[in-house]
Amino acid sequence: MSAFPAFRRAATASTRRIPHFVRNEHRASLAAFATAASELSKQPTPREPPNFPCVEAHAARESKLQSINGKSGVKLTNESTSEDPSASGPEPPYARPNPSSYQTFSSKKPLPLVYYPESPLPQYDIAYETWGKLNSSKSNAILLHTGLSASSHAASTEANPAPGWWEKFIGPGKAIDTDQHFVICTNVLGGCYGSTGPSSKDPLDSNQAAYATRFPVLSIFDMVRAQFTLLDHLGIDKLYASVGCSMGGMQSLAAGWLHPERVRKVVSISGTARSSPSAIAMRFAQRSVLMADPNWKNGFYYDGLPPHTGMKLARQIATITYRSGPEWDQRFGRRFRDSPSQQPASGPRIPALCPDFLIETYLDHQGEQFCLKYDANSLIYVSKAMDLFDMTHSALTSLNLVSGDAQTPDLTATGSLHLTPPPPHLPDLAAGLVPLVNTPVLILGVQSDILFPADQQRECAAALKLAGNTQVVYYELGGVWGHDTFLLDVANVGGAIRGFLS
Amino acid sequence: MSAFPAFRRAATASTRRIPHFVRNEHRASLAAFATAASELSKQPTPREPPNFPCVEAHAARESKLQSINGKSGVKLTNESTSEDPSASGPEPPYARPNPSSYQTFSSKKPLPLVYYPESPLPQYDIAYETWGKLNSSKSNAILLHTGLSASSHAASTEANPAPGWWEKFIGPGKAIDTDQHFVICTNVLGGCYGSTGPSSKDPLDSNQAAYATRFPVLSIFDMVRAQFTLLDHLGIDKLYASVGCSMGGMQSLAAGWLHPERVRKVVSISGTARSSPSAIAMRFAQRSVLMADPNWKNGFYYDGLPPHTGMKLARQIATITYRSGPEWDQRFGRRFRDSPSQQPASGPRIPALCPDFLIETYLDHQGEQFCLKYDANSLIYVSKAMDLFDMTHSALTSLNLVSGDAQTPDLTATGSLHLTPPPPHLPDLAAGLVPLVNTPVLILGVQSDILFPADQQRECAAALKLAGNTQVVYYELGGVWGHDTFLLDVANVGGAIRGFLS
Repeated sequence: MSAFPAFRRAATASTRRIPHFVRNEHRASLAAFATAASELSKQPTPREPPNFPCVEAHAARESKLQSINGKSGVKLTNESTSEDPSASGPEPPYARPNPSSYQTFSSKKPLPLVYYPESPLPQYDIAYETWGKLNSSKSNAILLHTGLSASSHAASTEANPAPGWWEKFIGPGKAIDTDQHFVICTNVLGGCYGSTGPSSKDPLDSNQAAYATRFPVLSIFDMVRAQFTLLDHLGIDKLYASVGCSMGGMQSLAAGWLHPERVRKVVSISGTARSSPSAIAMRFAQRSVLMADPNWKNGFYYDGLPPHTGMKLARQIATITYRSGPEWDQRFGRRFRDSPSQQPASGPRIPALCPDFLIETYLDHQGEQFCLKYDANSLIYVSKAMDLFDMTHSALTSLNLVSGDAQTPDLTATGSLHLTPPPPHLPDLAAGLVPLVNTPVLILGVQSDILFPADQQRECAAALKLAGNTQVVYYELGGVWGHDTFLLDVANVGGAIRGFLS
Repeated sequence: MSAFPAFRRAATASTRRIPHFVRNEHRASLAAFATAASELSKQPTPREPPNFPCVEAHAARESKLQSINGKSGVKLTNESTSEDPSASGPEPPYARPNPSSYQTFSSKKPLPLVYYPESPLPQYDIAYETWGKLNSSKSNAILLHTGLSASSHAASTEANPAPGWWEKFIGPGKAIDTDQHFVICTNVLGGCYGSTGPSSKDPLDSNQAAYATRFPVLSIFDMVRAQFTLLDHLGIDKLYASVGCSMGGMQSLAAGWLHPERVRKVVSISGTARSSPSAIAMRFAQRSVLMADPNWKNGFYYDGLPPHTGMKLARQIATITYRSGPEWDQRFGRRFRDSPSQQPASGPRIPALCPDFLIETYLDHQGEQFCLKYDANSLIYVSKAMDLFDMTHSALTSLNLVSGDAQTPDLTATGSLHLTPPPPHLPDLAAGLVPLVNTPVLILGVQSDILFPADQQRECAAALKLAGNTQVVYYELGGVWGHDTFLLDVANVGGAIRGFLS
């Protein structure tokens, strides 16, 4: 305490004494009153409104996109039918990867769809990339499932040397060791990076227009079935492992569930077996701002400008759910965009209504970076598939994925996981997960994740155990990186995967 | 286990046997393939896109508002100057309370402003309501501070018998006992329910137009200073207590801090002494969607239509932060808007991209209810004031609210509160809170609050103790109601207040 004499004096002031800087504050207040009166007589004009660069950015982006397209987005709708859209029509301006940088499996056979048993997808493409070599017995393949908006580019390749989204996890000697394994990553069905999705041409449309919102609502199971037709095409009967993070963690479970005899091991990181209402709420908020963008036009924007402002706003919301408050405390705190040296030496800094705190400029930047990189309709369809994912037996029954005769178990097997209280749907989830009963499963959760909270992974692991699976490995990580931990924590996430796969 | 023989059979199946409903699923899948092929030959036309009632709702609201205003919002901007706006111009359509239902204190003296020391607010109104009777010594007054969007109508009155936002907490024999106390609640400066805010006429504008975004950015301290000029007007020198929840919890601390000699007790519920980056992020997302609404027009929308769609979207985001995942699990689970009896008896229910889960319809409804009840600019300014609130000594110094000579203490006094690790700004916060050293303070936090997490209240209580305050009472509540607990948990929140005030 002796190191802080000034503070201590104030803190131990008697109850009668008002600390000195409170008196100072009152003096400042009185001085401000006096200044106010004199200023008023000098300046009878109203204050000017501030500028709003964050709002102007939307209009600037719109103008830029119009100039790239060579014409107004509004006029485009009328003009597009008079031209050959494949020759001169505007391309969706989001950044598609170069088609030569990935491989494409094109299926001419229809794909059955969970929600439309009588109306399958007539044909479809699956974009994919591979790393490592398939061995002669074709027994070393790992199928990798991505998060919502990722492409098949999980790691650099000869065809595309840019770093992939899981660059540090895949390669010779890395957690997913390409010296040992043949790794396959696909762009998800419904996405926009080479696989068939809402931005693809509808083969039933005589004008070759995009599906837009004529695209069917997808299930995670549809996406995984499409992946297995690719495996058939590659002659891979049995996977060494199915590995996925976030939405990919759902798909990885679904892969092992759909084809227990074709998947040796399942890894599900920061995923869930049953999307929770709070995660649905966060994704609903994103879809809502996107669909309210006037450019969205019920999804039929492909011959005009995309809903880039809605996408930016949606990504801002999403970004909030990808990290954690503790990380922002450490990284940004309450610092402003201008450094202290740029701020007034004395007197208050006037705050702005546009991004002003560093946390705001960070969210703004994340939204701006993303808004032209991904197709809005893909965001809607893929996020909806995540919401719909539910491996409880009753949900699977309602989708005709299982027959309805399983019974719900009791809860005696869940004592080893901290679920207080166990959610009421746990027995139903356990009954749903029975097809995974003989598959070794690694479940990994992160305590700071607010989008897929660790309770979700705990409940999945508990349900698997309850179903009778004796080969469940459950890890729970600390740290401040939230949902994005699977992209960042190479040591712990990578280490858990390496141990489980070896 | 014997109660669930069918499940147990499946769960204990040998490792060679694939559970029977997995086989069934594969049969269903094959059948779907076959159906698909025959359907394709029958129906070569593309699918029809679905309807989007959630998007149509925005346009319908726009049309309704235009018809209420008797003309198009777009044309209005050109026509409004030719008419007397006070006589025939469109009123902002959000529901102002009837001016006869509250009292108004109008100050003709300027109000000094923290961020504009040389440019005070020239004049201002404060709307307020009261309950109970001021005693002859004027020693029984309680000043009540509201959350972001609340009016002065905390409880029913003769003039306005509608239930108030804290109806169950205020009244004879209730937690805030009007048999003993004279209770005053104000609409916050910057609001739109009778107090001066961005929708008020700018007295310096020769056309009597609203301030809009010419309104100055406010500090929580400005709001509290305006309240104290009302107390001066009422002849109340010393408050029995200052009580507030959420933003009001900030104001309550600020009241005791600004005027330690005029506030006997401070109650701060689900508030904070220093807004965190994650709370700023959530409010930033709301302001962003609001300001991106084409109707917002940099805040100058008062002679046209308000940004009702942006307000709806902002409120949806806000609502996510007001409750908690566990509450939604209990209340909505994964149920859909249609009851099971309305859903297909067999076969899948086709999901909608507009609100479909009950959690989605709930958020949609909350947004729709709110979007015309509150002024968009008030939301921006009041939420910004919350973001800016920071009682660390360094922040107060940068605003010239205190002199810069306090030192930071060590952490020896914080052992009794669970802060692991103590945030690095704790000593700075303790130094800032020194003026409250002699004031009894009740801090109440809620463990399920995701907007003002309990860590925020713990840190506030710890900082007060560290500053030398020996009269800090800290309660932390459980339950699933999240931030809204202060509106709902009469027994526990009310009980804590009653005990502290008695």
